[in-house]
Amino acid sequence: MNAQAFNAQAFGALPRPAPDVIAAVREKLVARLGERVVVSRAVLEQHSHGEGLPAIGVPDIVVYPETNEEVAFVLSLCNVNRVPVTPFGAGSSLEGQLAALAGGVSLDTSRFDKILEVSPDSLDCRVQAGVTREALNAHIRDTGLFFPVDPGANASIGGMASTRASGTNAVRYGTMRENVLGLTVVTPDGRIVRTGSRARKSSAGLDLTHIYVGSEGTLGVITEIQLRLYGLPEAVIAAVCQFDTLEGAVAAVVTALQSNLKLARVELFDEVQMRAAINYSKLDYAETPTLFLEFQGTPTSVREDVETMQVIAEDNGGGAFQFAERPEDRNRLWKARHNGYQAVRALAPGKSNMGTDACVPISALPACLLETKADIIASGLLAPIVGHVGDGNFHLGILYDADDPLEAARAEALAFRTARRAIAMGGTCSGEHGVGLHKIVHMETEHGEGVALMKAVKNALDPNGIMNPGKIYP
Amino acid sequence: MNAQAFNAQAFGALPRPAPDVIAAVREKLVARLGERVVVSRAVLEQHSHGEGLPAIGVPDIVVYPETNEEVAFVLSLCNVNRVPVTPFGAGSSLEGQLAALAGGVSLDTSRFDKILEVSPDSLDCRVQAGVTREALNAHIRDTGLFFPVDPGANASIGGMASTRASGTNAVRYGTMRENVLGLTVVTPDGRIVRTGSRARKSSAGLDLTHIYVGSEGTLGVITEIQLRLYGLPEAVIAAVCQFDTLEGAVAAVVTALQSNLKLARVELFDEVQMRAAINYSKLDYAETPTLFLEFQGTPTSVREDVETMQVIAEDNGGGAFQFAERPEDRNRLWKARHNGYQAVRALAPGKSNMGTDACVPISALPACLLETKADIIASGLLAPIVGHVGDGNFHLGILYDADDPLEAARAEALAFRTARRAIAMGGTCSGEHGVGLHKIVHMETEHGEGVALMKAVKNALDPNGIMNPGKIYP
Repeated sequence: MNAQAFNAQAFGALPRPAPDVIAAVREKLVARLGERVVVSRAVLEQHSHGEGLPAIGVPDIVVYPETNEEVAFVLSLCNVNRVPVTPFGAGSSLEGQLAALAGGVSLDTSRFDKILEVSPDSLDCRVQAGVTREALNAHIRDTGLFFPVDPGANASIGGMASTRASGTNAVRYGTMRENVLGLTVVTPDGRIVRTGSRARKSSAGLDLTHIYVGSEGTLGVITEIQLRLYGLPEAVIAAVCQFDTLEGAVAAVVTALQSNLKLARVELFDEVQMRAAINYSKLDYAETPTLFLEFQGTPTSVREDVETMQVIAEDNGGGAFQFAERPEDRNRLWKARHNGYQAVRALAPGKSNMGTDACVPISALPACLLETKADIIASGLLAPIVGHVGDGNFHLGILYDADDPLEAARAEALAFRTARRAIAMGGTCSGEHGVGLHKIVHMETEHGEGVALMKAVKNALDPNGIMNPGKIYP
Repeated sequence: MNAQAFNAQAFGALPRPAPDVIAAVREKLVARLGERVVVSRAVLEQHSHGEGLPAIGVPDIVVYPETNEEVAFVLSLCNVNRVPVTPFGAGSSLEGQLAALAGGVSLDTSRFDKILEVSPDSLDCRVQAGVTREALNAHIRDTGLFFPVDPGANASIGGMASTRASGTNAVRYGTMRENVLGLTVVTPDGRIVRTGSRARKSSAGLDLTHIYVGSEGTLGVITEIQLRLYGLPEAVIAAVCQFDTLEGAVAAVVTALQSNLKLARVELFDEVQMRAAINYSKLDYAETPTLFLEFQGTPTSVREDVETMQVIAEDNGGGAFQFAERPEDRNRLWKARHNGYQAVRALAPGKSNMGTDACVPISALPACLLETKADIIASGLLAPIVGHVGDGNFHLGILYDADDPLEAARAEALAFRTARRAIAMGGTCSGEHGVGLHKIVHMETEHGEGVALMKAVKNALDPNGIMNPGKIYP
């Protein structure tokens, strides 16, 4: 397959259940869930896609279950009738995960909005899948704790677990992989299964939790998540450091990581992303490659870390640090980071933003970023780079005209080459967005025989193939 | 099942391959591996058990493959002939993982002893499965890096991945779960599959790596491991703090964790374990509950952390810190910790040490440890407690006379109650030793319906059930 093989028309072509099957299932769903079964055109359209891709898989029915037992009812009903089910969280995924390619039921978790338990003593909590990361952090603010995983969007925790999401804090706190202690999952045949425990570690059998984390709704529905929480740091300093060159900015980060410096956040914006952020978030910086940094610890240790980083930055051509010490200044800075996706879209109104991400070993990051930058320039497309560079992870926001098939194909081709470059350098085609539809073409290149093992696990846990068909597996 | 259901006689009873099948397989193995196929009595006995359990599963053949292709040959040959295969690393596992319960082939990975690649720039390395943790650290000493996961024994990295091992550094650096980036696994049908990548994070499909980490050789053979490495800290201070009561020692740890204090290591010895350590390692301390602590960072931050912990300890009845700042003093201290298993055995020569571990949420640790301590006293057995308490993980070394069936049954019953208590408190029956044979009785209690999902995955990846039969799955 080549890059052109992905386009909106090529998908949505999976066989759909017969209308009478859908009608019969719908009747049984209504009998149990009543008005929480919706078939209005607007709601179906809304559940046909996430961010970044056109509407390419309209479901036949949207359901809003409220309990594990209702999810089990929906799944087992659909399983018996071979009706596809696509789980839907906040609608913010970027790789086509939410498209109901074979129609069927879109299972919306937004009514799973309860925070079930918070334990400040054990630094953990249990939430329902539809709780968003911002809602969780607002809820626990008074406990002195926070949940660090922060993708750009205000995603649902269930969706974040399903795509193995991360964000700006991963360099210090890890991703969803490291922060999910356990789950409640509902299997296609309607079993309600609790995985993991509240213990920090366990060697008690196969790691079911991590089979479901990152499985993008293809094995079952995640309904509850046990999460690690962290104490708010005593002292926090954020700083912005601008560089003349991308090389210098990346080299500073690589040196800092190799020097054991504890960076809480380190985000790279290239000069195009800076332009987008300056325009969109009214920031007062130059349009040059820039690091957004955050240091956390005690007042003493934070000062020490800042001083070390200043030396490293200066050695690599970085300018003076511009500090944001007051919480409101820091929030403004990180809000600008989180609004990166919208900022990129605002750079070229009317164009679509094909957000793609890749991740490479730290040592490969300079070469990978510079080759990618050259590729962007050669492509003639506008595609800002922003990176969680402490993890070797970076994003392109490729702007293209969705109504111009040639430009869309060029955007696809650029995203394709970016993924393949990362894989060739020992990395992965997706650091945090998942596979969905868009990255399926890379699965065999990245995983080889591993794809067959993934399919074996998929078939074992979803033998009728009703869960989110057409995703992940080539 | 009750605690008495586990005993040496009850196992080893799985049906074994017919002698002519073994003879035919052996002939083909010899044709390819020559003298690396061994059937001498002494070697078979040595491969019939790990630490802590009697010889309860003697294999028919021991093989020493040297390449992935040879492992693939052995597995596919055994798979076709339905001959069981039990992978064998350093022989240090504690829960019966290594017993060849149905005979067949013990696959010894000790010839997989090469460190394939070390990348100081990316802070990672790739090793063969038979490399031990001490060999790895000796090899990379000059790079300024180290690998932190440190179970008591000088285990093989492959074995550590297979049991999801951890150790004293887990509170800061995580366990094998967090530190394995990827694997090479050989499947029962002889496919050689590379999982994961060198990227720090990935959302590219099912997490095959974490399906194999902790699977105890029941899905295939791990032959290579991609590991995270860490820069040696600039400053390290170890300290010993003795308490009048177990309550006080545990409360100090819980408070420290809740205060966001960065502990690199925090090990609890009860007064019995202290007696064992004092006798075995010639330490000059009192026989009272004791914390062994380590702080890492810059000279400034370490001093600050120590001062904070001193206040917390004092508030909970801890005595003055006794520091070990010189590397040789620190090494002596941690060697005493790592020799805990042998020290306990030396406490009662001639007795066996049933090492068992459990892990609970931090908030449940005080109650769990105190109830367990009371249970030990009531049992009349000698069973020192030592804990990686920063993770909520603790061990009992239950001393018993293996030739006295009644005492052995009392030891089993104590281990059984300890596991069930941990599960009831939201924890797990095994923090880091694995399931093997010994913890199978707890799997349904801990995982409920999850056991059926584990079995489904097992059947998908090892359909003929040749890999380490009789382990993990009830």
